[in-house]
Amino acid sequence: WNKTAMDTDDLSTRILAGERRALARAITLVESGRADHRAQSLELLEKLRGHERAAMRIGLSGTPGVGKSTFIEAFGMMLTGLGLRVAVLAVDPSSARSGGSILGDKTRMERLSRDRNAFIRPSPSQSQLGGVARRTREAIDLCEASGFDVILIETVGVGQSETMVAEMSDLFLLLLAPAGGDELQGVKRGIMEMADILLINKADGDLKATATRTCADYAGALRLLRKRPQDPEGYPKALTVSAVEENGLDTAWEAMCELNDWRRANGHFDARRAAQARHWFEAEVRERLLERLTRDPVRGVMGELAAQVENGALTPSAAAQVLLEGALSAE
Amino acid sequence: WNKTAMDTDDLSTRILAGERRALARAITLVESGRADHRAQSLELLEKLRGHERAAMRIGLSGTPGVGKSTFIEAFGMMLTGLGLRVAVLAVDPSSARSGGSILGDKTRMERLSRDRNAFIRPSPSQSQLGGVARRTREAIDLCEASGFDVILIETVGVGQSETMVAEMSDLFLLLLAPAGGDELQGVKRGIMEMADILLINKADGDLKATATRTCADYAGALRLLRKRPQDPEGYPKALTVSAVEENGLDTAWEAMCELNDWRRANGHFDARRAAQARHWFEAEVRERLLERLTRDPVRGVMGELAAQVENGALTPSAAAQVLLEGALSAE
Repeated sequence: WNKTAMDTDDLSTRILAGERRALARAITLVESGRADHRAQSLELLEKLRGHERAAMRIGLSGTPGVGKSTFIEAFGMMLTGLGLRVAVLAVDPSSARSGGSILGDKTRMERLSRDRNAFIRPSPSQSQLGGVARRTREAIDLCEASGFDVILIETVGVGQSETMVAEMSDLFLLLLAPAGGDELQGVKRGIMEMADILLINKADGDLKATATRTCADYAGALRLLRKRPQDPEGYPKALTVSAVEENGLDTAWEAMCELNDWRRANGHFDARRAAQARHWFEAEVRERLLERLTRDPVRGVMGELAAQVENGALTPSAAAQVLLEGALSAE
Repeated sequence: WNKTAMDTDDLSTRILAGERRALARAITLVESGRADHRAQSLELLEKLRGHERAAMRIGLSGTPGVGKSTFIEAFGMMLTGLGLRVAVLAVDPSSARSGGSILGDKTRMERLSRDRNAFIRPSPSQSQLGGVARRTREAIDLCEASGFDVILIETVGVGQSETMVAEMSDLFLLLLAPAGGDELQGVKRGIMEMADILLINKADGDLKATATRTCADYAGALRLLRKRPQDPEGYPKALTVSAVEENGLDTAWEAMCELNDWRRANGHFDARRAAQARHWFEAEVRERLLERLTRDPVRGVMGELAAQVENGALTPSAAAQVLLEGALSAE
């Protein structure tokens, strides 16, 4: 056996045994853009396939300022207090621009990051949403194989990242701030329709009454949405929490468990994971097919054809035809 | 020479001579999805390449109810009155659902459709934006080769169709209704940034004062946008018009000519057409590459792999790898 095969064998054994360093190393491997690392990643994921234990994958979104880190720290500490192992994966499509958030994540969740039953992994510095999606999806599989009970996938509420996180979660939570009635409309309808549980944070001190009213407003808005087959009576649901005072976190967790149990018992859990797997397979095929345009010799030929199109020597359609029947030939 | 070659030779000669029936037939050809028609289209467009006269391509967008058809009819009649030949192409990505709009377009612009110097062509019933884009782009080339002086490309303000039309126009106009200050925000910033001239319609009767105020509001909003290199002093510009009373149409046309002349004199006209040609070349390559996924045998293999991914026999990444190295192999 060669070194590569031995490595992934060893790594998979150690991941299945719940070794944190092996998990961290494996996530670094799936994040790598190098072709040999990619091959090793596929090998490793294939060895771990079927060994996944059924963690609860919880997607969590919320705009900056809503108290997301404070919530995750308090909620995560509560879960580890219940004897559960918790992994936190951050998805930040903008991290490439802001220069990464490794330090940020560790200091944001100081207590949780020191908890032996918690594992926090910030978003890598990758600019393409496609790359972030694949990395996060594979990191989830690795955490699940490593025996985590709950995997929190955190994202900021910008662009397509919420849809992406919802597409890899069993439950999708939206963390909201107390607000006046007019501001309700700030939440895009499409995002509301993806949410399973809305959590209105900061239900403490001066904001407590506003939070309660905001919660009632959102509960009313949720009732106006079309009923989804994957929801039992009473869901999607809006609840108030206070991450700072650690209030309402147990009630929120009970709601998550109730919803997840019902979906498991009624086939929706498996159906959703199957549909998600299909979605990511198709997305990855499309993305990798388009990647061919960025590699030589195709990239070079495409650039030359583009120059001819620009100066009018070829029509766009004719140039596309030349490329597709030449450098991009399917035969 | 075979029949195909003879056909496109004859067709191109007749298009260059300005024959309307030949133009209509050629547009039907580029709209066709059949492979042999596609090959003939490319042949025809290649024969006409370089023969294009420099028509002014004017993109026009506006939400339903703003008076778009009335404006196009009045503006088109004014242009033909000046001795210009005018082509109107409608882009309606939703026409596949609404069952086409051929009758609608002809009755909407009754006078213009009977004008010998005008040519009105509605959107074909195609559902994919990509297909609509290629068809419209090629129809523009055909109209230009056929000697039209002005080509109006009309679209409704939904989804990506405005961006698409702006990407194939020399000038992009936004037709707006008189409105209160609050409603200004209804125009998406991205659309505002693409617009060269804003026309506030219905500056007549009871709405005249409101239209004048709305125009001033938009002029103020335009001044807040970042200065673009392709604009001379005073542009982008907001003007009032009344399509019903045929007021302000001449002033609007003068502004379009002034802007277009300046851009031609300063290299922006050619630069924009070159950048647009490159954009459409790249878009068509991407679209046709992804089309391969919908054709057998790839489509069949992809379906089988998706089923294996759904039942957990393969990870999404591994299945994508199998497809890309197998049925979609680049070698």
